[in-house]
Amino acid sequence: MSEQLPQDSIGLVSPQIFRFDEPLELASGKTLPTYELVVETYGELNDQRTNAVLVCHALSGNHHAAGYHSTDDKKAGWWNHYIGPGKPIDTDKFFVVSLNNLGGCHGSTGPASINPETGKVWGNTFPHIRVRDWVQSQARLADRLGITKWAAVVGGSLGAMQCMRWALEYPERVDHCVVIASAMKLTAQNIAFNETARRAILADPQFFDGDYINHKSVPESGLAIARMIGHLTYLSDDGMGKKFGRELRSGSFERGKEDPVEFQIESYLRYQGETFSRSFDANTYVLMTRALDYFDLAREYNDDPVAAFDHALCKFLVISFTSDWRFSPERSREIVNALMRADKDVVYAEIESTFGHDAFLIPNQLRYQELFSAYMNKIKV
Amino acid sequence: MSEQLPQDSIGLVSPQIFRFDEPLELASGKTLPTYELVVETYGELNDQRTNAVLVCHALSGNHHAAGYHSTDDKKAGWWNHYIGPGKPIDTDKFFVVSLNNLGGCHGSTGPASINPETGKVWGNTFPHIRVRDWVQSQARLADRLGITKWAAVVGGSLGAMQCMRWALEYPERVDHCVVIASAMKLTAQNIAFNETARRAILADPQFFDGDYINHKSVPESGLAIARMIGHLTYLSDDGMGKKFGRELRSGSFERGKEDPVEFQIESYLRYQGETFSRSFDANTYVLMTRALDYFDLAREYNDDPVAAFDHALCKFLVISFTSDWRFSPERSREIVNALMRADKDVVYAEIESTFGHDAFLIPNQLRYQELFSAYMNKIKV
Repeated sequence: MSEQLPQDSIGLVSPQIFRFDEPLELASGKTLPTYELVVETYGELNDQRTNAVLVCHALSGNHHAAGYHSTDDKKAGWWNHYIGPGKPIDTDKFFVVSLNNLGGCHGSTGPASINPETGKVWGNTFPHIRVRDWVQSQARLADRLGITKWAAVVGGSLGAMQCMRWALEYPERVDHCVVIASAMKLTAQNIAFNETARRAILADPQFFDGDYINHKSVPESGLAIARMIGHLTYLSDDGMGKKFGRELRSGSFERGKEDPVEFQIESYLRYQGETFSRSFDANTYVLMTRALDYFDLAREYNDDPVAAFDHALCKFLVISFTSDWRFSPERSREIVNALMRADKDVVYAEIESTFGHDAFLIPNQLRYQELFSAYMNKIKV
Repeated sequence: MSEQLPQDSIGLVSPQIFRFDEPLELASGKTLPTYELVVETYGELNDQRTNAVLVCHALSGNHHAAGYHSTDDKKAGWWNHYIGPGKPIDTDKFFVVSLNNLGGCHGSTGPASINPETGKVWGNTFPHIRVRDWVQSQARLADRLGITKWAAVVGGSLGAMQCMRWALEYPERVDHCVVIASAMKLTAQNIAFNETARRAILADPQFFDGDYINHKSVPESGLAIARMIGHLTYLSDDGMGKKFGRELRSGSFERGKEDPVEFQIESYLRYQGETFSRSFDANTYVLMTRALDYFDLAREYNDDPVAAFDHALCKFLVISFTSDWRFSPERSREIVNALMRADKDVVYAEIESTFGHDAFLIPNQLRYQELFSAYMNKIKV
């Protein structure tokens, strides 16, 4: 049956659950008594355990980064074009580890899970999670898998923030750090977009202050609007113009008609919002956007990114995309400048693209693919 | 008492209501049987009636463009810095006419008005309004005031769209057309932002499909989110960074604390949204954003802007602002290019500014002010 799946994909994959009974102390001071992480791995760990790559997901991502869950599966994992045999993260060479982060809604412990101390759904009582908490939980996962050192930690956007934090918190456990379409901290504008999205969720009467599960309710409409805001800002003006322009889906501008006119872009966005709202947890969305807002790489290093990166021992690849206006190339150049001043080994590429922030997920961008491959191919394992 | 008002303002002003009993046929084919427009005028109409300037407002504007309604009034009209004695639109020279557009919520007939045919609030049955309908209603207002020809029609954003439409629909009635921070049509991204804002309003259960007045309800929360989306996209990334950065309003990032952290930008935006939602009508917001989305200057001219502007007889001033990303300088350059190819008299200025789209409203931008003044001063009346 697996012949039906594309030959260049890793094929069928299955998630595994890892349970951790040792309490995890969070940056907030709260403690998670126990927790589970859902994990997928692709490729084989070599005997020396030196070929492991950690893939960190972004805001709405999950552990299912590559391959298919069944032969009927129409959609592959979210980074399937970049993980697989012969792909940039080559599964013939690397052992790839991809997990759903703590606080997620795809199988790892999160707001929709049961709090073991109360026997009730965590809901709005789930503790705040920061990027460093994810990194700590990922380090424990590495221990469990017997991985002392990652050949590379790789991620885009919020995922890349985890990678940078790895390089600072566990310098001796990272060989290469791949930072795609990211920033050392969000700008006020970025925070404002996230806050507006959160506000749409919080304002939905079905949200019940985050306690919607106990109310047998789902704040679909608020989450859909939040996603519309996110999705639209992850695309570029040019890219949307090329794809949708001012094409109409229904109605007409003819004189004398009062058909409600609907533009293609409107129905597209609404569809994206509605689909997302049926598969994602609202509390997780709030939690993830807050982690994104709160992240500030150099905060604990006197706001000096050079002093921060001074702790790193790994090599860096930094990639940005020209039309990405939420994590603009300027933000990546700030990372590169700090790395250079800290005397680190860094390769930087600014990729021409019309796909905005989403570019890091989108296939068939030749230069991105080649550059990413070339870097990963040179990594010694 | 009026000594308390700033000397350079036009001082105390009063709105007037103009009632129109002749039905207005709209572009949609529907007809408004009667309607009222609320209007303010500043300065004196000269004997030859050649010094009249029409000011057209944008999305959330109204007729109160300059001066004060009382000596206790803390806030002047929305364009007070640009209209008054010695200001760019000099009330010592010009007779300025400023109205609240049809469909508005500040005194002109709109969705919150009573439909004379039913005796009930129009609400969601108020007809769709297009930019050309506003222009037609403004032309009737001009007739009523005895103004055959405007010395200038002036506006920013959606206001400037009305000015351009004036130049095409009533070429013999316009001497100068001042187009600030505008576009010949919105891009897909711009429509997407408007649609997301509308969605927030429509999703508010207090909206009741636009029939909230009959339900004695106000969709404040949806309107607040819509305004947050709008407001934040009318500012620039740089400008917000300079004003707010990552400053906290409350909470702390100290380890071991789970205070909810709030950034300044979050509370600022929320305040803007909440204030707006208490003073603006949700149906009007939906109506205005649709008029904005539907506007397409050259649609009826075979999508050829040169053919469109060919009809104009006036001179043009076009102004854009470098950090305006919703109505970017590129959009203004498209207008200027079409005007040049149509062999029209046009002056274009791209003003350095960090204020984004809002720049056209913001005082003390010296180059903008001087250029605007210089142009208006040369107009012969």
